[in-house]
Amino acid sequence: MNTQLKYTRRSFVATLAGMAVVPVLGRAADLSAAASPETRPHKEADKFSLGIAGYSMRDFSVDETLWWLNRWQLHRWAIKDAHLPVSSGPEVIAALQAKCKAAGVTIYGAGVFYLKSESEVTNAFAYAQRLGATIIIGVPNPELLPFVEKAVQASNIRLAIHNHGPDMDLYPTPKSVYDHIKNLDPRIGICLDIGHTQRCGVDPSDALGEFASRISDIHIKDVDKAAKDGKTVPLGRGVIDIHRLVRTMRQLKYAGVCGLEYEGARAESLPGTAESLGYLRGVLSSA
Amino acid sequence: MNTQLKYTRRSFVATLAGMAVVPVLGRAADLSAAASPETRPHKEADKFSLGIAGYSMRDFSVDETLWWLNRWQLHRWAIKDAHLPVSSGPEVIAALQAKCKAAGVTIYGAGVFYLKSESEVTNAFAYAQRLGATIIIGVPNPELLPFVEKAVQASNIRLAIHNHGPDMDLYPTPKSVYDHIKNLDPRIGICLDIGHTQRCGVDPSDALGEFASRISDIHIKDVDKAAKDGKTVPLGRGVIDIHRLVRTMRQLKYAGVCGLEYEGARAESLPGTAESLGYLRGVLSSA
Repeated sequence: MNTQLKYTRRSFVATLAGMAVVPVLGRAADLSAAASPETRPHKEADKFSLGIAGYSMRDFSVDETLWWLNRWQLHRWAIKDAHLPVSSGPEVIAALQAKCKAAGVTIYGAGVFYLKSESEVTNAFAYAQRLGATIIIGVPNPELLPFVEKAVQASNIRLAIHNHGPDMDLYPTPKSVYDHIKNLDPRIGICLDIGHTQRCGVDPSDALGEFASRISDIHIKDVDKAAKDGKTVPLGRGVIDIHRLVRTMRQLKYAGVCGLEYEGARAESLPGTAESLGYLRGVLSSA
Repeated sequence: MNTQLKYTRRSFVATLAGMAVVPVLGRAADLSAAASPETRPHKEADKFSLGIAGYSMRDFSVDETLWWLNRWQLHRWAIKDAHLPVSSGPEVIAALQAKCKAAGVTIYGAGVFYLKSESEVTNAFAYAQRLGATIIIGVPNPELLPFVEKAVQASNIRLAIHNHGPDMDLYPTPKSVYDHIKNLDPRIGICLDIGHTQRCGVDPSDALGEFASRISDIHIKDVDKAAKDGKTVPLGRGVIDIHRLVRTMRQLKYAGVCGLEYEGARAESLPGTAESLGYLRGVLSSA
């Protein structure tokens, strides 16, 4: 008996009929329970929030994403243009904000954006400003950094430069980001991607300790080995010492968002994100 | 952009074409990595195993279930008749066993079975015997217990009676099971369902301590309140003290299976099970 097939079929039929998929996942009314505060995510003394990097939900619509964030009590979302095109006008943004409010979700950040021209920088900051986001997670070309600094100062929106590991010459490690930004406005910081960092052979907790003053966002994930060809795995199944990372975030009073980013294949993204979240909460609740 | 819909559609089309759904979830070849031992599930000193109660996977085919158990490194499966009808002949069972072996999964148990007549008892024990399962998780009518005891003695297959909480007069709590079995063969024991136990206002760790000698299986889950109308939630989000349960299992050297049982709605079962597993592993790896 394979009732999963029935589910699949029902979803498909619902889609054909132009209905939203969300009611199949759960009653839309469930969202009304949204704004309730998290009960046991981590200690009262913790300064950081749990959130989600937009890439984790790349295969889900805005409505589905909000349904799951509400379900998971993840109240901080860094949105990508896949969920909201950069060109979106005020009405589209207002409609999205209303949905987010109902789900108890704040769009705290925008990105990851690759910023390869001044106009891309300008568009990204305008986008973040329209959204009310306080931080852009981005990968700016180094020659644009003086221009980026002016945009940060004009908007008071921070930029966290995302390190992308051994696959990219630009910004592989947190240190490589730091070397580019150390003399710039302190609102230009680092989005510490712990998976890409570990793949460079650097323990993310060491990087967090070394560059704490500049780390303004974290992408939390795990990888199966500390090498360029390390593959993404759910949190706790790989080589990253998540316990040490949690201790370090607490010791340093890290006050940004710790955003779950699951890179696995499409059909695994929901269980992979859920397992990672569960593991993180298990660790957070243990210390 | 809603690529989830594309996934749903692809699954459906694949099903229509008579193809297995598994290749959409992942390459079947992934299963060949199956038999690798768990790396960091819990401490070396732990006597118990992690597994899955069949009900969690009720909406998935056998192939899908094995794909996920392999993925999750859950090597112990208590199977229900939904995945393998009680009437299955030797060839069907042999084919299933081959798939399980490839996935690194052992069918350690059968059930939950409601046993309301001698023939149902006989059939359940014959089923478990054909499968090589060493335990039946069941709910026998009390008047059948002498007959069940003979079946246990004849087969050397244990029976764990599942407590079902305040919804049922029969066996609501572990104590109510114990009172029925305390003078029977010690191979007749208790499947401690921690959710149903907590809904009766009994802390499952207290029950585990009190009836340890008879607890031969555990269904691990969480509920949002310790009351009859408590609803199932992923592990760590409810009122059950999972940390204390883990400490108690370790102190008592519990040596059975700790089987994840997620009761949530169909579309949530995979993320709900995954989140629960992640939380449990986070707790297990913390102490």
